[in-house]
Amino acid sequence: MKTVGILGGGQLGLLLALSLSRLGARVVIYDPDSSAPARKVAWKSFQAPWTDLNALKEFAALCDVITYEFENVEISGLKKLDLDGEKPIYPSLSVLATTQDRIFEKQFLQENNLPVAAFFVVQSYDQLAKIEDGITFPCILKTATGGYDGKGQFVFEKRADLVAFIKEKPLPILRAVIEEKLPLYMELSCIVARSADNHECIFPVAQNTHQAQILDTTLMPADIPAALAATVKDIALTAAEKLNLVGLLTCEFFITRERGQSTSSVEVDGYHVFVNEFAPRPHNSGHLTMNATTVSQYDLLARILLDVPMVEPRLLAPGYFCLANLLGDVWLAQGTEEGAKLNLQALKTHVDVVDLVLYGKESARAGRKMGHVVSYGVSAKEAVEAARDARAALGQAVSVRAGAAQ
Amino acid sequence: MKTVGILGGGQLGLLLALSLSRLGARVVIYDPDSSAPARKVAWKSFQAPWTDLNALKEFAALCDVITYEFENVEISGLKKLDLDGEKPIYPSLSVLATTQDRIFEKQFLQENNLPVAAFFVVQSYDQLAKIEDGITFPCILKTATGGYDGKGQFVFEKRADLVAFIKEKPLPILRAVIEEKLPLYMELSCIVARSADNHECIFPVAQNTHQAQILDTTLMPADIPAALAATVKDIALTAAEKLNLVGLLTCEFFITRERGQSTSSVEVDGYHVFVNEFAPRPHNSGHLTMNATTVSQYDLLARILLDVPMVEPRLLAPGYFCLANLLGDVWLAQGTEEGAKLNLQALKTHVDVVDLVLYGKESARAGRKMGHVVSYGVSAKEAVEAARDARAALGQAVSVRAGAAQ
Repeated sequence: MKTVGILGGGQLGLLLALSLSRLGARVVIYDPDSSAPARKVAWKSFQAPWTDLNALKEFAALCDVITYEFENVEISGLKKLDLDGEKPIYPSLSVLATTQDRIFEKQFLQENNLPVAAFFVVQSYDQLAKIEDGITFPCILKTATGGYDGKGQFVFEKRADLVAFIKEKPLPILRAVIEEKLPLYMELSCIVARSADNHECIFPVAQNTHQAQILDTTLMPADIPAALAATVKDIALTAAEKLNLVGLLTCEFFITRERGQSTSSVEVDGYHVFVNEFAPRPHNSGHLTMNATTVSQYDLLARILLDVPMVEPRLLAPGYFCLANLLGDVWLAQGTEEGAKLNLQALKTHVDVVDLVLYGKESARAGRKMGHVVSYGVSAKEAVEAARDARAALGQAVSVRAGAAQ
Repeated sequence: MKTVGILGGGQLGLLLALSLSRLGARVVIYDPDSSAPARKVAWKSFQAPWTDLNALKEFAALCDVITYEFENVEISGLKKLDLDGEKPIYPSLSVLATTQDRIFEKQFLQENNLPVAAFFVVQSYDQLAKIEDGITFPCILKTATGGYDGKGQFVFEKRADLVAFIKEKPLPILRAVIEEKLPLYMELSCIVARSADNHECIFPVAQNTHQAQILDTTLMPADIPAALAATVKDIALTAAEKLNLVGLLTCEFFITRERGQSTSSVEVDGYHVFVNEFAPRPHNSGHLTMNATTVSQYDLLARILLDVPMVEPRLLAPGYFCLANLLGDVWLAQGTEEGAKLNLQALKTHVDVVDLVLYGKESARAGRKMGHVVSYGVSAKEAVEAARDARAALGQAVSVRAGAAQ
């Protein structure tokens, strides 16, 4: 029986643990947060900071192989483990180093002729002030590390905004990229799975919408022309190969109808394709692979970690599956944090909802990913509307008589 | 956060625990076996005999609701818990009492005009000797309790076999049914899910084959006429209602092309339908609901236990899914118990295999259910052949160079 260590115990770690468990493996979770939801399905779990080398060593000693469920794992401690070379970490720390730093990520894209929005690397306020007149607006500054769900991002609509930013110095240390603010037409994502023996599988392209920079809905398959889907898949596969990836790579794309300033964008049938960023792990947009395809992103990562041959994911139904994220806000629509509840009984009248996942997080906070619903529709529009309607109903007042669970 | 207790920690408990975990619940496992596979995904687990009232009370104290994953749970201890009335047990102990005893089960069928093979109740060797001349052959004696996978069954091809049985008295206490040995044409099973507020869902009918009385392959949907499927579903739903079930009821059916001695069989288009037995729990033939339908048997039982409204399971693809059970024999085909391995790399050339589940049992013994593969085919024949071929390949010698996992 193999034992797999997962760094991070959020919903992605939880769902990966379930796929590992149905392949006969044991799971060990490492997370600084004592209430990380994946702990409850772990064979063993550790609560310690990312930098606690003793705890990391104890954790690694239990494991045959190690992975991580988010890219903001601090790797200083892990590098020391990796130098010992005893336990494989998939994806490798060199993949993690590239994808957890926007500067390295953009440079990787550029070096490998992969399409990326025009950008500048920014290493300090002084340097930013020097290159300021070469920058066109609107643009976005994104910190090199530590950002997710829109954190660490600053939009400059006009030059005066940037000048004010340089004057105010809101960040203690400035290490960032400034990129062209693209006129977004849509956002896509695509997940590649790649095994240690270089076998590759790819999932159907997903189409994402965001609200306040947090994933709001995902549609699978994306409602896009076949040529665009094929281009996106090609780019994702190339990126995985160039990274020499073992594990999952989620590739997030920006699609525009205008060329923009970048010279590297790829055009197909009037769509311009840019890689936004990578995540070398399961992705929230990939939850849908639990419903839409024969094997999920979690299943394939589990197979890679356990050295079980992968199987190509196949779409299961002719229509569309749509995920609507349930943020803590849906619970809080009911009132206070203590009293927050989902009106689960509302699902009775939302018959197109084919799945519900609740991550088991202890408290509902605004913006916190707490769960998701999945609907099915013959058309993309039907699927999206059904998922949004169901989410709205879940947030509606629970009558005392109904006595909803959760 | 709700906590669900599961009595029994085998593969059915493991897979139920996974569905509960993705609805945000915690799982507590109770099993006399220290190596029960569901322990590794449990929040807490108990190792104690079924009759240890103190341990059962401690277990129940942690749980909001309790269920069981096999019907041979000894209920003497549970009855005492249930009398306290503190924690609901689903399905109820009265359902369990009926379905775990073949005498009560057959009588239930008879009383409710559900189709059952002709049978006699046998309460002692003396009584059996008295009714012996009313019995026709071939027939099967099945002990009232404790039987599964063909255990506790005696086939009497002719009267002399029965006479010898009465003389030898191979069982210390005789409490059994003797039933007509039907000329089986096929075996079907159908799973009903029923919630505390009487909402019912039903899964597609499954078609089963057995080897040495252990489930060998399951096909979903069954390759049968629509009218036969409808009849089978009607009977399963009626049985669930008459039992006042809350939870899952698996209804196993014998199908013949001849009427037989029973006056209660139901005929549809030349098929004669008999209920063989019930299982008030997830069923091994229902593993396929993880692949073939939008929600699985485990998902619906989890919803019932957590008071989340159910959703009707829908078939996902136009073709057929086939499960082939992996018994310990497949591992042992490699050699000794210690060296037993699956040739997992064989999956690379079996591309119609869409799923693999390994239950994580510590040692491979002959006849022990260790895992299963699932194939997909456009026709039933293709699906069944693909599953059987893949299983055969998994049992083929692993070359030392291949170094297969598991």
